[in-house]
Amino acid sequence: MRTPRRLAAMLGLSALVSLTASAQSPLTPAMRAEMERLSGAALASSRAPEILRSLTDSVGPRLSGSPGDRAAVAWGLATMKALGFSNVRAEKVMVPVWRRISESAAMTAPYSHPLAVTALGGSVSTPDRGITAEVVEADSLAAVDALGEKAKGKIVFIWKRTERRKDGAGYGETVPIRGAGAVRAARVGAAAVLIRSVGTDNDRLPHTGAMSYEERTPKIPAAALSTADADLLHRVLAEGKPVTLSLLLKTETGPDAESANVVGEIPGREKPGEIVVIGGHLDSWDLGPGAIDDGAGCAIALETARLIGSLPVRPRRTVRVVLFANEENGLRGGRAYAADHEAELAKHAAALEADMGGDRAYGFSWNAGPGAERFLNEIATFLSGLGAGDFRKGGAGGADISPLLASGMPLLGLRHDASRYFDYHHTANDTFDKVDPAQLNQATAVFAVMTYALAEAPEMLPRIPEAERTRRRGGD
Amino acid sequence: MRTPRRLAAMLGLSALVSLTASAQSPLTPAMRAEMERLSGAALASSRAPEILRSLTDSVGPRLSGSPGDRAAVAWGLATMKALGFSNVRAEKVMVPVWRRISESAAMTAPYSHPLAVTALGGSVSTPDRGITAEVVEADSLAAVDALGEKAKGKIVFIWKRTERRKDGAGYGETVPIRGAGAVRAARVGAAAVLIRSVGTDNDRLPHTGAMSYEERTPKIPAAALSTADADLLHRVLAEGKPVTLSLLLKTETGPDAESANVVGEIPGREKPGEIVVIGGHLDSWDLGPGAIDDGAGCAIALETARLIGSLPVRPRRTVRVVLFANEENGLRGGRAYAADHEAELAKHAAALEADMGGDRAYGFSWNAGPGAERFLNEIATFLSGLGAGDFRKGGAGGADISPLLASGMPLLGLRHDASRYFDYHHTANDTFDKVDPAQLNQATAVFAVMTYALAEAPEMLPRIPEAERTRRRGGD
Repeated sequence: MRTPRRLAAMLGLSALVSLTASAQSPLTPAMRAEMERLSGAALASSRAPEILRSLTDSVGPRLSGSPGDRAAVAWGLATMKALGFSNVRAEKVMVPVWRRISESAAMTAPYSHPLAVTALGGSVSTPDRGITAEVVEADSLAAVDALGEKAKGKIVFIWKRTERRKDGAGYGETVPIRGAGAVRAARVGAAAVLIRSVGTDNDRLPHTGAMSYEERTPKIPAAALSTADADLLHRVLAEGKPVTLSLLLKTETGPDAESANVVGEIPGREKPGEIVVIGGHLDSWDLGPGAIDDGAGCAIALETARLIGSLPVRPRRTVRVVLFANEENGLRGGRAYAADHEAELAKHAAALEADMGGDRAYGFSWNAGPGAERFLNEIATFLSGLGAGDFRKGGAGGADISPLLASGMPLLGLRHDASRYFDYHHTANDTFDKVDPAQLNQATAVFAVMTYALAEAPEMLPRIPEAERTRRRGGD
Repeated sequence: MRTPRRLAAMLGLSALVSLTASAQSPLTPAMRAEMERLSGAALASSRAPEILRSLTDSVGPRLSGSPGDRAAVAWGLATMKALGFSNVRAEKVMVPVWRRISESAAMTAPYSHPLAVTALGGSVSTPDRGITAEVVEADSLAAVDALGEKAKGKIVFIWKRTERRKDGAGYGETVPIRGAGAVRAARVGAAAVLIRSVGTDNDRLPHTGAMSYEERTPKIPAAALSTADADLLHRVLAEGKPVTLSLLLKTETGPDAESANVVGEIPGREKPGEIVVIGGHLDSWDLGPGAIDDGAGCAIALETARLIGSLPVRPRRTVRVVLFANEENGLRGGRAYAADHEAELAKHAAALEADMGGDRAYGFSWNAGPGAERFLNEIATFLSGLGAGDFRKGGAGGADISPLLASGMPLLGLRHDASRYFDYHHTANDTFDKVDPAQLNQATAVFAVMTYALAEAPEMLPRIPEAERTRRRGGD
């Protein structure tokens, strides 16, 4: 507790509070002025929408190891150079290669119905003739376990709605079904697993996403039905008649391919060796051009650095943009960055990620050491003017920067309003038109203010305590 | 002009107006009581949602001449019998047969992009190797004509937004592009025509729909891009570089097949030979199960007849439900009904159609002879209590009943709030979950009230004057 403030509060002297708070603020008037300037510039004429348009229109889908992935790396390098960044380079990352070839599904009894289906990322193929089997339904992984013998040779169908929430928490509740459904269904002898898309929409565009197998369990095909088709199947199953379904998936897994983290910098004016890393991930799923996941985050980070580079006086520290490789199906980019830069991580002041779409930002999640609150509270107060003062302690900022947690550097994640995010996430519908330029500019303003503050603050924020450096990856 | 009313209005005696209007009302208290009963029953426990669910879940897509079409006819007969209708029968209609086999498109220069495309209904195939050609853009049919030599051998791309309107009028503005685009593009030598989907959504689900060819003009393939993909193409074309695209469509036209109008009745208690026809169309496009187009209309008409059949005292006239065949790509059902029933059309009191989705009804379009206003105004006043008092004179009530215009019988069309209708219309997304049961019940209540009033009124409404019996078909 700061004594003058406490005293003032006790005396009810709010004017004194603000006076003393201001006198003691870790944000100098000069810093505040630059933060105002950045925010104003981002809101008025951010290039983030145009950067995003360029990525989505000229590159399109860019799953790790695909031709689109290679085009995205080239785009990242060219864009950073065009924006005037320094030390622009591709840092090699070997990524897994998985490819969707074809997919179809249909209900065959009691009614005949085509179903909108997509293979989950990493799924094996069905036999060439497909799998035709009776369907058994479950509403959770535990319910799959409980099917026991009833699942043998069947297609296990896991039906659970994903709830729409501003903070995207509904995703966290259902995504384990996507990730572990195949293993759990295989353990009870299922021939395949089919899930209700992890999404909040009602479009007939299924959501793909990562899933995994385990060594000693048979690898069974895994796919998602669009929410509308899953609800149809759920209704027909409720009629009580046996339901059969045919599923055909053809996919391919290849040897690892070369991709890269794309890196560029705005060198610091005073402590260029101290680094604030900002980024999003450059890869996307294959179904769509990844405008919200995570073209938006890339655009926000790139434009943040451009705006900071355009200031009359650059901040103390270096701002390093990293467009991470392979977030979606491997996290190899984030891991490679942490490993390759291990020697300089002690000089990383912080890492920030934007990976929750392009809608308005309402705050940050943050993780740092004791004493960071005071500085961050000041920023939150500043950002509340942009509607983004809702800070939440915890987590690892985002999937790509989560491997940096072990180093103890402060990690921050931009909190976007994710109410719409899971309507489009991992679908063919994740296209440029889903991003509202005004909201993307606001999010850019918020990200730029925080980045600048961390790059200009006299001291680096306190590190995350040792005991808290082993949390699991956050975000997606 | 009714003298007491005019007098009262001149004197400003509104109480007298309402008193005399009520005294003179063509709606007797007994009729009003039944209308209230019907409306209350529909709002509280309409079976329309369950009827619609049964159609979409158990039959699914039902394009004319397809196995789904045959299943729909069987469903219609079984459903009418289950609902207790009389004289249930299939009235044979020969329908055109067109089938979608496969379709794909991609931008090939300056960027590589898969595009969500669908063949328009009736389109010929491309060659097996597809068509790869440069794209030229136009924003109207007149602009296509003006392309002249520039269109030769190219893919003509017509980009025009469909506006969202409560009355669906935006559709009327762009649908001629879908219908005539192929002919107009072929006249200037195009290899194919591609349009921005006639839809108000931004999903990657293209909208199909009818198009036509003419005898002496080459038949070129015609397809629609999803609005999101069309906007992508439009943006890339705006960059000014040559854009090439590949298009592959495989379709098939077969000999006419047998289908049917499905007909059933609630016989009138006093004048069973006088008939009020109510209906929607049973066929749908092939991409989706046609919940809003026009499963909803079928459900509304079926439930209306069921509710009327459940009244303690049935109305004077017969209510005849007709689930029309082949509205989407031929209108053979509507034409067959008019031809097959020509001898009894003079005894048809009116025909009503519901074919604008399942959202709340806000009124009716109507066409009848002079003197009909008074009765219809009374109904409008009654229906304003349900939010459905917005009556508009004109049109032919709906596509299926438009061939009845020549007979002069009064024609009415249910006006639904169509704000969302063209988000889903003619796409894979036209599924049961898009219908809000409460709104469908309200629309059913409105339709039931009007149907009852026309079936119970002491006299039939005046016929449409000869001079007005040759308007073109309305609605879709």
